[in-house]
Amino acid sequence: MFKNNSGAFIGVDLGGTNVRVGLFLEDGQILNWQQDEILAVRGPQAGLQKIYRLIESVLVGANQPLAGIGIGSTGPIDRLRGCIQNPYTLPGWEDVDIVSPLREKYKVPIAFENDADSAALGEYWMGAGQGKERVMMVTFGTGIGTGLVLNGKIYRGVDGAHPEGGHILIDPNGPECYCGARGCWESLASGPAIAAYAQQLPFQEGSYIAQHSGSDPQEITAALIFAGDRDGDQTCVHIVDRAAQHIGLGLVSLMMVTLPDCIVLGGGVMRSFERMKPRINAIIEKHHVIIPAKKVRLEMAALGQQAGIYGAAKAAINLFEEQ
Amino acid sequence: MFKNNSGAFIGVDLGGTNVRVGLFLEDGQILNWQQDEILAVRGPQAGLQKIYRLIESVLVGANQPLAGIGIGSTGPIDRLRGCIQNPYTLPGWEDVDIVSPLREKYKVPIAFENDADSAALGEYWMGAGQGKERVMMVTFGTGIGTGLVLNGKIYRGVDGAHPEGGHILIDPNGPECYCGARGCWESLASGPAIAAYAQQLPFQEGSYIAQHSGSDPQEITAALIFAGDRDGDQTCVHIVDRAAQHIGLGLVSLMMVTLPDCIVLGGGVMRSFERMKPRINAIIEKHHVIIPAKKVRLEMAALGQQAGIYGAAKAAINLFEEQ
Repeated sequence: MFKNNSGAFIGVDLGGTNVRVGLFLEDGQILNWQQDEILAVRGPQAGLQKIYRLIESVLVGANQPLAGIGIGSTGPIDRLRGCIQNPYTLPGWEDVDIVSPLREKYKVPIAFENDADSAALGEYWMGAGQGKERVMMVTFGTGIGTGLVLNGKIYRGVDGAHPEGGHILIDPNGPECYCGARGCWESLASGPAIAAYAQQLPFQEGSYIAQHSGSDPQEITAALIFAGDRDGDQTCVHIVDRAAQHIGLGLVSLMMVTLPDCIVLGGGVMRSFERMKPRINAIIEKHHVIIPAKKVRLEMAALGQQAGIYGAAKAAINLFEEQ
Repeated sequence: MFKNNSGAFIGVDLGGTNVRVGLFLEDGQILNWQQDEILAVRGPQAGLQKIYRLIESVLVGANQPLAGIGIGSTGPIDRLRGCIQNPYTLPGWEDVDIVSPLREKYKVPIAFENDADSAALGEYWMGAGQGKERVMMVTFGTGIGTGLVLNGKIYRGVDGAHPEGGHILIDPNGPECYCGARGCWESLASGPAIAAYAQQLPFQEGSYIAQHSGSDPQEITAALIFAGDRDGDQTCVHIVDRAAQHIGLGLVSLMMVTLPDCIVLGGGVMRSFERMKPRINAIIEKHHVIIPAKKVRLEMAALGQQAGIYGAAKAAINLFEEQ
């Protein structure tokens, strides 16, 4: 598609809270990176100015010409039109064309991806999924996002749309989700879902949850529950067991459909992976009957908060390699 | 891999009840086909002789040299070793090497696929999925089998294993399945699952089900239930509505992960698709929020019982195209 790919590549990870920008060489070496709060409510123009500043900043001292820019953005996005469509995590940014301004300013090819896809591509490129033919990444955070990388390329659905593996069905009697389902994975195993379940449980005066939330349900977070679980509080242990059960069941359904070489696990909820691991593994082993479920490696994400900038940069590099 | 692909290709569809053999040209033209009962209990040697006879029979009068043979077999199979591993649908055929005898006898390349994959490839090649980049086929029969064809190639999981999308989770409180799950799709929406649900319902003397089963639960089949539904029997209507609900929910989960251009629906249960269509479509439309679910076309399988031989032949043709 593009011919001249000598030089350095920018990866932009645009989230609802922070924007990160990194500078990379084609071999995966990171030269520089920076982050800042996006402060989305100030609007897309202010956000774009911030992205420009971060780009200029990471380019300082780079003695390589800029060859391409990749953006991984919090979804939903319209990848083909280059537009952010998201009034949820980036309020006021509905239908914002982010690709054209960057292309006009820097005169380089721009890749534009959903952030779950760019994180997956980053982990495939330089993280936990290196060298694997089929890499599924699942990020358990505010939501549950999935990205599938097949032979080094992001898997895309009909008309290039991004699949949402975080919304597979887990329990038809579960909580309602904005996706149209009851009891989809995100409604049961994301951070807010774990907190929501805890908030509606009766809790006793003097219990761990009561003490640490000041008996205010709004103060009950997934992080508080995981801390209580480590502390041995029985209610918290129950909530974490239940979350692990839902996480394991969802991983099995993903395996049934895609049977990847590895599933890379990321996001805040996975900071408590070690605690949930025995239960998750027990569920997976139970399903080894008709698919080789035990062959699917579970790997913790290796790039942490940098997965997005790695993947966005790699998406830009891939523009030169595709077709 | 192989160079000389001029000539005709044999497709073998080896099922638990019947074996079908067809002769094809590379452009998809079917020259001849035949079927016979496999009578698996007589053992693999007798079965192989039957396959030889069917091959000789469809080759009579063909003025094309034989270039390759493809086999689509009831699973589980070990594709890389060329072995049928299945004591369930082909009793006594455990660990039977079916590829080597055919290769030695006919001196041509042999492709060996799971039958759900070969049916999907057949529908992609000459059936309901023609020209589509991503084709998911789901066969609702004795079990629920899935096959995914991406850019004309069968999608394979880790180590080439066949994914089993028929065992995604639908309801953790559902029936136990041999796959290790409770309430997987197959346990709720396959033909036997629909019958099993009906068998445990209380039925009244003189009701449609009582009359047509002679009040013997073992005589209650999915076909009986679908007939009663067409007849307006309220119990049967309820059972079919419930099946349609489960079918719709499973299709949504498949879409969440793979977002194909189309889902091709096959198998005996789908003979009643028109009756279930409104409910299935209503569920899919409800989930159009975060994925473009309505863009995923639902297509009835177009090749009927021949999908397997088409796909097996195409798998043989693909041996010459894959490197």
